[in-house]
Amino acid sequence: MEKKANLLEDSNLCVKNKGEIKINEKVRIGGDQILVMAGPCAVESEEQLMATAEGVKSSGAHLLRGGAFKPRTSPYSFQGLKKEGLKLLQKAKDITGLPVITEILSENEIELVAETADILQVGTRNMHNFALLRELGRINKPILLKRGFAATIKEWLSSAEYILQEGNTDVILCERGIRTHDNYLRNTLDLNAVVAAKSMSNLPVVVDPSHGTGDSKYVPAMAKAAVASGADGLLIEVHNSPNMALCDGSQSLDIEQFEGLICDLKALSRVLDRKI
Amino acid sequence: MEKKANLLEDSNLCVKNKGEIKINEKVRIGGDQILVMAGPCAVESEEQLMATAEGVKSSGAHLLRGGAFKPRTSPYSFQGLKKEGLKLLQKAKDITGLPVITEILSENEIELVAETADILQVGTRNMHNFALLRELGRINKPILLKRGFAATIKEWLSSAEYILQEGNTDVILCERGIRTHDNYLRNTLDLNAVVAAKSMSNLPVVVDPSHGTGDSKYVPAMAKAAVASGADGLLIEVHNSPNMALCDGSQSLDIEQFEGLICDLKALSRVLDRKI
Amino acid sequence: MEKKANLLEDSNLCVKNKGEIKINEKVRIGGDQILVMAGPCAVESEEQLMATAEGVKSSGAHLLRGGAFKPRTSPYSFQGLKKEGLKLLQKAKDITGLPVITEILSENEIELVAETADILQVGTRNMHNFALLRELGRINKPILLKRGFAATIKEWLSSAEYILQEGNTDVILCERGIRTHDNYLRNTLDLNAVVAAKSMSNLPVVVDPSHGTGDSKYVPAMAKAAVASGADGLLIEVHNSPNMALCDGSQSLDIEQFEGLICDLKALSRVLDRKI
Amino acid sequence: MEKKANLLEDSNLCVKNKGEIKINEKVRIGGDQILVMAGPCAVESEEQLMATAEGVKSSGAHLLRGGAFKPRTSPYSFQGLKKEGLKLLQKAKDITGLPVITEILSENEIELVAETADILQVGTRNMHNFALLRELGRINKPILLKRGFAATIKEWLSSAEYILQEGNTDVILCERGIRTHDNYLRNTLDLNAVVAAKSMSNLPVVVDPSHGTGDSKYVPAMAKAAVASGADGLLIEVHNSPNMALCDGSQSLDIEQFEGLICDLKALSRVLDRKI
Repeated sequence: MEKKANLLEDSNLCVKNKGEIKINEKVRIGGDQILVMAGPCAVESEEQLMATAEGVKSSGAHLLRGGAFKPRTSPYSFQGLKKEGLKLLQKAKDITGLPVITEILSENEIELVAETADILQVGTRNMHNFALLRELGRINKPILLKRGFAATIKEWLSSAEYILQEGNTDVILCERGIRTHDNYLRNTLDLNAVVAAKSMSNLPVVVDPSHGTGDSKYVPAMAKAAVASGADGLLIEVHNSPNMALCDGSQSLDIEQFEGLICDLKALSRVLDRKI
Repeated sequence: MEKKANLLEDSNLCVKNKGEIKINEKVRIGGDQILVMAGPCAVESEEQLMATAEGVKSSGAHLLRGGAFKPRTSPYSFQGLKKEGLKLLQKAKDITGLPVITEILSENEIELVAETADILQVGTRNMHNFALLRELGRINKPILLKRGFAATIKEWLSSAEYILQEGNTDVILCERGIRTHDNYLRNTLDLNAVVAAKSMSNLPVVVDPSHGTGDSKYVPAMAKAAVASGADGLLIEVHNSPNMALCDGSQSLDIEQFEGLICDLKALSRVLDRKI
Repeated sequence: MEKKANLLEDSNLCVKNKGEIKINEKVRIGGDQILVMAGPCAVESEEQLMATAEGVKSSGAHLLRGGAFKPRTSPYSFQGLKKEGLKLLQKAKDITGLPVITEILSENEIELVAETADILQVGTRNMHNFALLRELGRINKPILLKRGFAATIKEWLSSAEYILQEGNTDVILCERGIRTHDNYLRNTLDLNAVVAAKSMSNLPVVVDPSHGTGDSKYVPAMAKAAVASGADGLLIEVHNSPNMALCDGSQSLDIEQFEGLICDLKALSRVLDRKI
Repeated sequence: MEKKANLLEDSNLCVKNKGEIKINEKVRIGGDQILVMAGPCAVESEEQLMATAEGVKSSGAHLLRGGAFKPRTSPYSFQGLKKEGLKLLQKAKDITGLPVITEILSENEIELVAETADILQVGTRNMHNFALLRELGRINKPILLKRGFAATIKEWLSSAEYILQEGNTDVILCERGIRTHDNYLRNTLDLNAVVAAKSMSNLPVVVDPSHGTGDSKYVPAMAKAAVASGADGLLIEVHNSPNMALCDGSQSLDIEQFEGLICDLKALSRVLDRKI
């Protein structure tokens, strides 16, 4: 195996990691397969979730994404359906067979969320929440760790190390856009981070072009660029009716757009000796 | 009272706040008094803490600061003395009579920390940890909320709102340096944030020039600038022997330097119609 | 033609531009063809330039790049061969038949540089040098305008407008990396800017992954990502012997690496309905 | 003299500089005196300039500032009165006796501007315009070099070195706000840069709180903070009628506000062992 840079002072479990992670019996990440996780920003209703879940499945997604607990800048914004949202995710999982990824916000909700989630997602705002990371290191479900929007690559890997050190070695890194001087887009998707994180660790690295740009018309181009840069997967917001979304509708693809994107990505992957 | 800008969509408890906050029977913040909180980055030993506590008290500090639980980028760095550190802080408080401020890292340690702390400090990395903020809104101790190192002013006040909304109205804001393109200093202390936060809310605003610059030789000039910009208090790292510090020694003043700074700040405060 | 956003208050020649630009009788940019400009950071010697020029030509480059006048942060660094460098570029152009792109630093050297250059390059540090931009608007050679390393998309297009307004409509935009909070890489190549600039103007947009990352081992992945994001061309540093380079050797490909990259890019372009 | 850090590889004329600079027979900068330069952003008309010049003089300013050539992001914005503006500045200088500072934008206008200007100002957008800096190193008038809005301290001093190296040793540094992630204010005035630049060089350092904040209601607090941090002078926008200004009115003080600020700064300076 290629030698990786060891950037932490005392250890670097990220570098020693095995690389490939098993999500369920059929789905793995970190090999030739580029994993596509798709679904709405927030679980809003049974109708919305089921329509979107069926849509992304038939288009070729491997996992269903959807937020039950939503971290919002303002306490007055919609905070998610919480337990009710988890129940709907479980139902969508039972019907479609797709494994589910959803966000965890509190040390005290890990057990609850892990009942339904196949991957627990740590959001950009909690990348430095070391108390949460330590607890997530003690469960045996894969963790998707989003990069803090102003975190360095080294800080991101150090946060992964908090999880790995407690015994959970199934950590997936996710680049989701950084905050820069320009606010024409919501965030600046940083594809250099994919190349850097892969050269410094053996962890799989996925990209979220939806949050990374904040605008659905930029998502296809940046999803293709992410795959060309070497990403192991994509986290894409898809909504059965983006105009009606309670949260982040402007960055969600509709199902037809998602289907077109998957088609393009399949052709692209073949040239790169990978598959979707 | 001067009209404040209401920057949040739905409410703005920050704007409606009463302004002055009582720490204990003798100590208040938000009025004419500029509050000085001083002590070591981390509680390291009984000898270190007692020597520093006595030193900062006799120099004129109003509160003792000191970390028992330390948030560190790497899991392999010193993480604090934890419960043992809290016991030492309690002892220093009993001996000197100084109220104590210390950091809270986990929802599950609030009760423990609040037994000793007169102010609970939320660090820059937890400003977006909404689960923690909500729990802190349910206790009746003042909370010092540091600005996230890449948070906007609006996001900072929105995080304060999470605490206020739950019923705890005693929130102190703390500017501690932001992350910019230049890394000559550890952080870029942003005094514009003092003026902005005070124009947009009635919450007291204090400044941490020690983390804000990361270099003890910049601390006196920036502490004076903070007071001149209108800050309601200062959070300053002081160590009885900075060269021996386990954490952030290069940004700590020794007791003699701290005493000299307090003397300068007293003269400065008088010209600004305030007192230390 | 698709409607473009008009982001400037008074006019927007960038939006009204014709799109395709003729470099010489055989070479155009802005159509299906992805233009590859390759060569050393600085012209250092006849031997170095000729070896590199022949190498990039036989690998498939369409233009030769090379700096005669070098803008350096410190006045004590190598400033380029100046007039002597231009003579060598002319010789390389005569021998290989490749058109030449080189940087212009001063209003008073435009005529001199334009004798040899087929494209005049404005570097990131001069994007806001409006006196220079105005003069370049009065000549009839294409201008490649690099984005300022902290410029917004709007400021970049406004700078292009300074050139267009004077009558020179042949402006090529070049993304070359922005300065962010993370300095693991020299710059953060911002591919979102490609998508944004193309959605807001009709100007061709090219990418410089060499300066954009500052590390030759990141160049191939980011070059591929640039093409996948929709870039109309690439500006790539190639040196016949990168270890011996006087300037930026660590970000230069050698000729063999460049040849391998061109081969990968040809396969990629076909899937994207373009050609190299 | 205190030892300064030598941060440039090959030389550091900034460190070896003599420190105090003579503007004219009566005015010097770099000693105990804090120099106040005040006036409008742009020279707009004889009436505006004379009223403002008289106002700032009687309030205690030492120099008159005012732009004749204006660098604007868009070519469609007001570009200044140019030669006519210089004539008005000369007239204001003759009448009030105040020396004049004004901006230089082009290598080819140095001689013209130097006829009237006592200090030539290089704006933030030209800090990296090395061709201009070299030419300014060959005249014998003081140069005020604004920090690039995304320049590091080291790059700022390296740009000063370009001027010093050519023989002109009268360089004044000016901090005017940097670009960060937060755009609540136009810029983020970085007072750490004052302390850093003074610790690394012997050049005088002044602060522009008007551009640095972009909002006149923040100017007094940040001007006081600048002086408390150790600045050798202030560059303040004052307009006889800010609401009518063609450029940057929202950041201009009126004459009464300026007079009040000078009064506060005098009291503050005394405590800091300096004078205005």
